[in-house]
Amino acid sequence: MSMQQKTNWKHKLHEVIYGTHTPAGKLFDIILLIAILYSIIIVMLESIQSFDKKYHDFFNVSEWIITILFSIEYILRIICVNQPKKYIFSFYGMVDLLSTLPKYISFFILDTQFLSVFRALRLLRVFRILKLIRFVGESNKLIKALKNSRSKIFIFIFFVFIVSIILGTVMYLIEGPENGFKSIPQSIYWCIVTLTTVGFGDITPQTAVGQILATVIMIIGYGIIAVPTGIVSAEYTASKDSTSNLTNSSCKNCGADIILSDASYCRKCGNKLNSDA
Amino acid sequence: MSMQQKTNWKHKLHEVIYGTHTPAGKLFDIILLIAILYSIIIVMLESIQSFDKKYHDFFNVSEWIITILFSIEYILRIICVNQPKKYIFSFYGMVDLLSTLPKYISFFILDTQFLSVFRALRLLRVFRILKLIRFVGESNKLIKALKNSRSKIFIFIFFVFIVSIILGTVMYLIEGPENGFKSIPQSIYWCIVTLTTVGFGDITPQTAVGQILATVIMIIGYGIIAVPTGIVSAEYTASKDSTSNLTNSSCKNCGADIILSDASYCRKCGNKLNSDA
Amino acid sequence: MSMQQKTNWKHKLHEVIYGTHTPAGKLFDIILLIAILYSIIIVMLESIQSFDKKYHDFFNVSEWIITILFSIEYILRIICVNQPKKYIFSFYGMVDLLSTLPKYISFFILDTQFLSVFRALRLLRVFRILKLIRFVGESNKLIKALKNSRSKIFIFIFFVFIVSIILGTVMYLIEGPENGFKSIPQSIYWCIVTLTTVGFGDITPQTAVGQILATVIMIIGYGIIAVPTGIVSAEYTASKDSTSNLTNSSCKNCGADIILSDASYCRKCGNKLNSDA
Amino acid sequence: MSMQQKTNWKHKLHEVIYGTHTPAGKLFDIILLIAILYSIIIVMLESIQSFDKKYHDFFNVSEWIITILFSIEYILRIICVNQPKKYIFSFYGMVDLLSTLPKYISFFILDTQFLSVFRALRLLRVFRILKLIRFVGESNKLIKALKNSRSKIFIFIFFVFIVSIILGTVMYLIEGPENGFKSIPQSIYWCIVTLTTVGFGDITPQTAVGQILATVIMIIGYGIIAVPTGIVSAEYTASKDSTSNLTNSSCKNCGADIILSDASYCRKCGNKLNSDA
Repeated sequence: MSMQQKTNWKHKLHEVIYGTHTPAGKLFDIILLIAILYSIIIVMLESIQSFDKKYHDFFNVSEWIITILFSIEYILRIICVNQPKKYIFSFYGMVDLLSTLPKYISFFILDTQFLSVFRALRLLRVFRILKLIRFVGESNKLIKALKNSRSKIFIFIFFVFIVSIILGTVMYLIEGPENGFKSIPQSIYWCIVTLTTVGFGDITPQTAVGQILATVIMIIGYGIIAVPTGIVSAEYTASKDSTSNLTNSSCKNCGADIILSDASYCRKCGNKLNSDA
Repeated sequence: MSMQQKTNWKHKLHEVIYGTHTPAGKLFDIILLIAILYSIIIVMLESIQSFDKKYHDFFNVSEWIITILFSIEYILRIICVNQPKKYIFSFYGMVDLLSTLPKYISFFILDTQFLSVFRALRLLRVFRILKLIRFVGESNKLIKALKNSRSKIFIFIFFVFIVSIILGTVMYLIEGPENGFKSIPQSIYWCIVTLTTVGFGDITPQTAVGQILATVIMIIGYGIIAVPTGIVSAEYTASKDSTSNLTNSSCKNCGADIILSDASYCRKCGNKLNSDA
Repeated sequence: MSMQQKTNWKHKLHEVIYGTHTPAGKLFDIILLIAILYSIIIVMLESIQSFDKKYHDFFNVSEWIITILFSIEYILRIICVNQPKKYIFSFYGMVDLLSTLPKYISFFILDTQFLSVFRALRLLRVFRILKLIRFVGESNKLIKALKNSRSKIFIFIFFVFIVSIILGTVMYLIEGPENGFKSIPQSIYWCIVTLTTVGFGDITPQTAVGQILATVIMIIGYGIIAVPTGIVSAEYTASKDSTSNLTNSSCKNCGADIILSDASYCRKCGNKLNSDA
Repeated sequence: MSMQQKTNWKHKLHEVIYGTHTPAGKLFDIILLIAILYSIIIVMLESIQSFDKKYHDFFNVSEWIITILFSIEYILRIICVNQPKKYIFSFYGMVDLLSTLPKYISFFILDTQFLSVFRALRLLRVFRILKLIRFVGESNKLIKALKNSRSKIFIFIFFVFIVSIILGTVMYLIEGPENGFKSIPQSIYWCIVTLTTVGFGDITPQTAVGQILATVIMIIGYGIIAVPTGIVSAEYTASKDSTSNLTNSSCKNCGADIILSDASYCRKCGNKLNSDA
């Protein structure tokens, strides 16, 4: 096999795995998608005791098939990319590796005592769901938008924590361990549950003063939900405006305002506009 | 009856059923509205056991009257429209058919064993409420707006699911079946309940680590509620702006799109636009 | 007393009751404010059994004093306004009357059997809180804004109801009376509790299918909360723009766009603008 | 030590405590940050009974170290600022004092009977968290934004209270003490819990009429959450726009406010503006 042929072969493989326009590339994507969804469903159903007892062998075989499939995919990806190291240590590379490892590890430590650690390792397979992100191109956009407003989000969370720590401590003082507020950390937990309007109801204020303070916490929470929403709305509106094609100049012939930046002629008098307008 | 007469008769019927400006059309609408609301109330009250025992015969007779009324309406609609097939397979046509069928089916399978299936079929009558949509013209607008932002909504729901599956699995690992997190699917269910700030409180974290993670989930949920709100706000603001002085035609000379409704000349080629463009 | 004197006297009284700038008018407002808040607190504390037993006489005397005070206020208002009938049948007039009546009625039917009806009448005194609206000028603005978007709010509530009725019925079918979904109306109640993200947790789905549908309801609820927020945001932004002093014309001398509507001179070339610009 | 030297020494100290750019200033900030976080964690863990029993002595010693550290910081701050009185009575000055006092007070009243009062005083130490605000510069921005919209927020909270008091009373009337609505204040508490979509579920309506009214309350709450969000969104969007091409100076000739930053002439009197205006 000449060098030329090898490169050619790698190129074709790359097209199948990363391309989405050729029939082979599409088929590969569909098979991968089904394998991911199937493996996630298996992990979930395995956690239901009655299912696990009944179909244990079926789950085991399914896991082995999926693991081998993902292993092949992982090896093929390493082979066909130009910089294997870069792929291996990338986000997707790590996810792809973590998707296959747990089952192999289970092969070696099946008869050890570290059962709880092993259980945790096996459940790592649920992170395979992150492989789906590849299929949704726009999710990168969402992550980018979140990154842009991270400083504001940090301040917001910081503010929620300050309020929760102070009001949680005051609630602990008012209600005390006899009413379910056993310690300050638990009171802070309750305060965040209330502030975010989740309201489980496992801990509730029993005294009149506690209920009044709870009311204040709720209204604060109800009010500050507006802060992140306002930030995101304004950011989103701004990003929409900036990406649009609006300008703010005027025609030198008739004085009409030129609104669209791609205009070559005034829409009012038909006068040719200078390119620097 | 000549062809002309028949068409005339169909035309008049069409006016009564679909028109809203003639007295007959208005009367038809009001009767239909009352019949729909009445039938929905009957379905609801029938489900309350004490009511069903007491007024069983009354409910039965009411149902038959309403069913016959809706059957007549259905047949009349088929007769008076020009393309009956199009109507039958349209959204409204399906709803109209489903509104009448359950009672007729109950006539044939009353004495069979398929009671639970039959019960489900009978309750299909609640879909009659969808007939109300006809009366609220603006609801089509709302549905359109939702359709426009469906790709963004899909990504948002996808993101919620990814977060829920991963954090739900981690919660299952931390809390385990002994604290109410019986299986991964149930943990994911709990995670969505918490993320959406619903917080039933039927399952709550008991361990310290679980409560800390729950806190993180709540704040994530509290934060990402801003995402759809921001999207809808921005969309709504944009749609409001666009309906003011924006048009959607194109220049007959160069094919460029005419965006501003007050344009007299094409901004690309300077061609004079007709006033009816 | 001459006609002139009488009018003068009425005019002065009007100034005290309705004016807010004279010392007497301010004093009247402060006394009224204290009386309203005091009366509301009395109504609340009266409902706590232990308080009512201990301080029954004090509450009774307080109520009589407040009632007589409000009666005098009501009579004075009728006297000093030009069109007493208009006042009596206005919103504030009705509230003022309802604030005094319950105590007088209690005088006559104290020893009758209609205790529960009587209790309801006595609690009508809580509507005195509406008298406070007079003191918050901007609340009329809020009510106006709500009135403007009432058609959109109606569609939104209509949409919530349609979804709740259909999904509530489906939940009743899935879960059934054995899991707490006793009837369709109660299932609809549960559905609204979930859709609005309140989530009491008194009724929760127990079956797997029910929990999956509950998840769908929550995500719908989490998503459609964006609709009213988007509407209000857009309305508010629009109202802010429209009430501001922005115009959209251009200077005839230099072609610069005139942005502020109160401009008399072009801010770029100093050219005097025509008043009709 | 000459006056000059003393001032010099004070100046250097000021740089270390308030400066953030010199290595010494950075080190001081980091030590302070760690001390604050450490002290907060100690307060929290102390409240957990099992921890307090085991590590009581460790907690006590830690507290003394932190208190002495904060005392030194407090004294240094008083020494190096120019107006010590202004600092002492400022917000940060009060927080700094409150951070050290509780432990010293505990030294004197350790063997008294006022245990519950003492406990409250000790927990005041949690307010040390407010010292963190110094490190987050943008939090002042958030507080400013909240101050700007305080009149709107006040109306909003006022509206929530009016609705809660009236609907809470009506719920008390419908459900009554036998269904958990023991008094009007508690019914109002429940109403706010529901209106803010927290929904603890400790009190839930049991009667059909009560559940219908609860539904109305929920939809009101679900709807009015849009009001603060809309306000904040609009405010935020406005503040973003205003920082772009808006200025805040005035014409030296006629005193009119100059709003647009690109103005060369006053739009009111046509007077030429200086470039540094």
